[in-house]
Amino acid sequence: MERIGLDHGSGGEASHELVKEIFLSRLDNAYLRPLDDSAVLDLPSCTLAMTTDSYVVDPIFFPGGNIGSLAVHGTVNDLAMQGARPLYLTLGLILEEGLPLQDLISIIDSLADAAHEAKVSIVAGDTKVVPKGGMDKVFINTSGIGLIPNGVDVSGHNARPGDVLIINGNVGDHGMAILSKREGLHFDIPLMSDSAPLNALVSSILEVSHEIHVLRDPTRGGVATALNEVASRSGVGIQLFEEDVPISPSVAAACEILGLDPLYVANEGKCLVIVSRDDAKEVLKTMKSNIYGKGSIIMGEVTAENPGRVFLKTKIGGTRILSMLTGEQLPRIC
Amino acid sequence: MERIGLDHGSGGEASHELVKEIFLSRLDNAYLRPLDDSAVLDLPSCTLAMTTDSYVVDPIFFPGGNIGSLAVHGTVNDLAMQGARPLYLTLGLILEEGLPLQDLISIIDSLADAAHEAKVSIVAGDTKVVPKGGMDKVFINTSGIGLIPNGVDVSGHNARPGDVLIINGNVGDHGMAILSKREGLHFDIPLMSDSAPLNALVSSILEVSHEIHVLRDPTRGGVATALNEVASRSGVGIQLFEEDVPISPSVAAACEILGLDPLYVANEGKCLVIVSRDDAKEVLKTMKSNIYGKGSIIMGEVTAENPGRVFLKTKIGGTRILSMLTGEQLPRIC
Repeated sequence: MERIGLDHGSGGEASHELVKEIFLSRLDNAYLRPLDDSAVLDLPSCTLAMTTDSYVVDPIFFPGGNIGSLAVHGTVNDLAMQGARPLYLTLGLILEEGLPLQDLISIIDSLADAAHEAKVSIVAGDTKVVPKGGMDKVFINTSGIGLIPNGVDVSGHNARPGDVLIINGNVGDHGMAILSKREGLHFDIPLMSDSAPLNALVSSILEVSHEIHVLRDPTRGGVATALNEVASRSGVGIQLFEEDVPISPSVAAACEILGLDPLYVANEGKCLVIVSRDDAKEVLKTMKSNIYGKGSIIMGEVTAENPGRVFLKTKIGGTRILSMLTGEQLPRIC
Repeated sequence: MERIGLDHGSGGEASHELVKEIFLSRLDNAYLRPLDDSAVLDLPSCTLAMTTDSYVVDPIFFPGGNIGSLAVHGTVNDLAMQGARPLYLTLGLILEEGLPLQDLISIIDSLADAAHEAKVSIVAGDTKVVPKGGMDKVFINTSGIGLIPNGVDVSGHNARPGDVLIINGNVGDHGMAILSKREGLHFDIPLMSDSAPLNALVSSILEVSHEIHVLRDPTRGGVATALNEVASRSGVGIQLFEEDVPISPSVAAACEILGLDPLYVANEGKCLVIVSRDDAKEVLKTMKSNIYGKGSIIMGEVTAENPGRVFLKTKIGGTRILSMLTGEQLPRIC
């Protein structure tokens, strides 16, 4: 077989063959192996984080990753942003009839590699096949659970005036990589998605500080939208310093050409960390020692004034309001 | 707004409005309400079941339910088939741009009612919007976790020779309801999907018997395919008695007209129970007392002979092999 057929979604013989030949061989673990209706997991008494995300990114292969690695990173990061240690993911595939089998294999290979790096197991799965034309190539849902260690309490509601805002590197890389690939744009330094698992970085900072108040991954809607959520839920103001917002020259150039604001462009390997001022230096140092945190920088602060609002202090000394994203810049970005 | 727009999937203002106006108002609970990246759940030390299923059924509204109720029933039942008490579900929506908002509301209303009946909470969600033509109307993923009570050990691997096979009612109702709606067929007695939550029925039989060995919901691929999985994994033979297989007259007629075998047609409210012969009578009685088990009947037995195979003892005394479904009868059945 060279392409996915409707019978791969029938639940019958072809489905079983696909599961054994393509999925189980790459994702094998003791929880998945029984292939029962549910995975069976032993857990200690705990506080659990649970999340879900569907991925419909177009194109499915892009510079710096593909929909498979993205589907692991995105859900692992959603768990990590709750302070949780991601443990188990489920995998829901919706495939278009006619999808080249080699594309599916490449996606599952990346997904398996990403799961391995993030130290999570895919414990249950489901595959549906939709007749050709009823959808576009591949959609993936991953849902996940993770353990929240005792004493960890991070939430979008916890930002406090005086806190400091740190980000772990350049903004806008994922969105601009997708857009440049989609539009066939070329730059001297190629645009690459930042898609990456952030759970190890998050674990390391939660170990050095008990004053991490908020963790947020600025995906759809970008940094500006994520910070607006936090400002609104915590009832605080947030001030960003434009000169400290890290942006790669390629992304800055691409955004200028296309008339986009990088603060609204999606990231898939970035973490907004809101931490007490006292602990900020130690947290920043710890972030910089992580492979995905080398570009970490303090880029803003939390204020008591202007609750619910986000402001940008511009390079020339002005101030402008950063509202939540309105409309849609880039459909199917993740 | 009357229709779903791309901005409802942007993560920005319109997304937030959709979540608050349409989803949170109908699905509200203490876990979902914070709208953080993950739900936070306190669990005792336990054995957990975890599962996922994507729903791409066409049409999205059908006699006896819609894609929303189906997405709850299917995942609740997958957990129940592991002997688990379903607790928490996640909801991943993929919507086509232009979907009438009223359709989405009807779907979420049904989903909320189904969750209420099954006593599960929707604790996390995600919505993506795909540009018009990039998919067909609505796909839903639900993933779920549930607690497996101490001492419960049901699995497709546990069938033993001498065990008895019980089903809780007529076979083929869901598949034929979908097909008749899709093809515009009409029958004297309308075909209705059997879509229903089976967790209460399962809990009740696990209370009266410690000898429930296998639970299986015969969805895609039908009864024949589900029993083939069990026969293969348990290394046993399974014999079905054709005269005891319950089929409604409408489904029998529709299958005959369309040349389909009801044993391969999908069900969404049926449970195959494989139990020791000693406990079969008590289990059957308990099943009959449940609203979704009134039509329960013993329709087969497990044998030591012919391991890995399923046989049908026909009404005229013959025997034929029931193999696993090959090919695909009805794409997008669930």
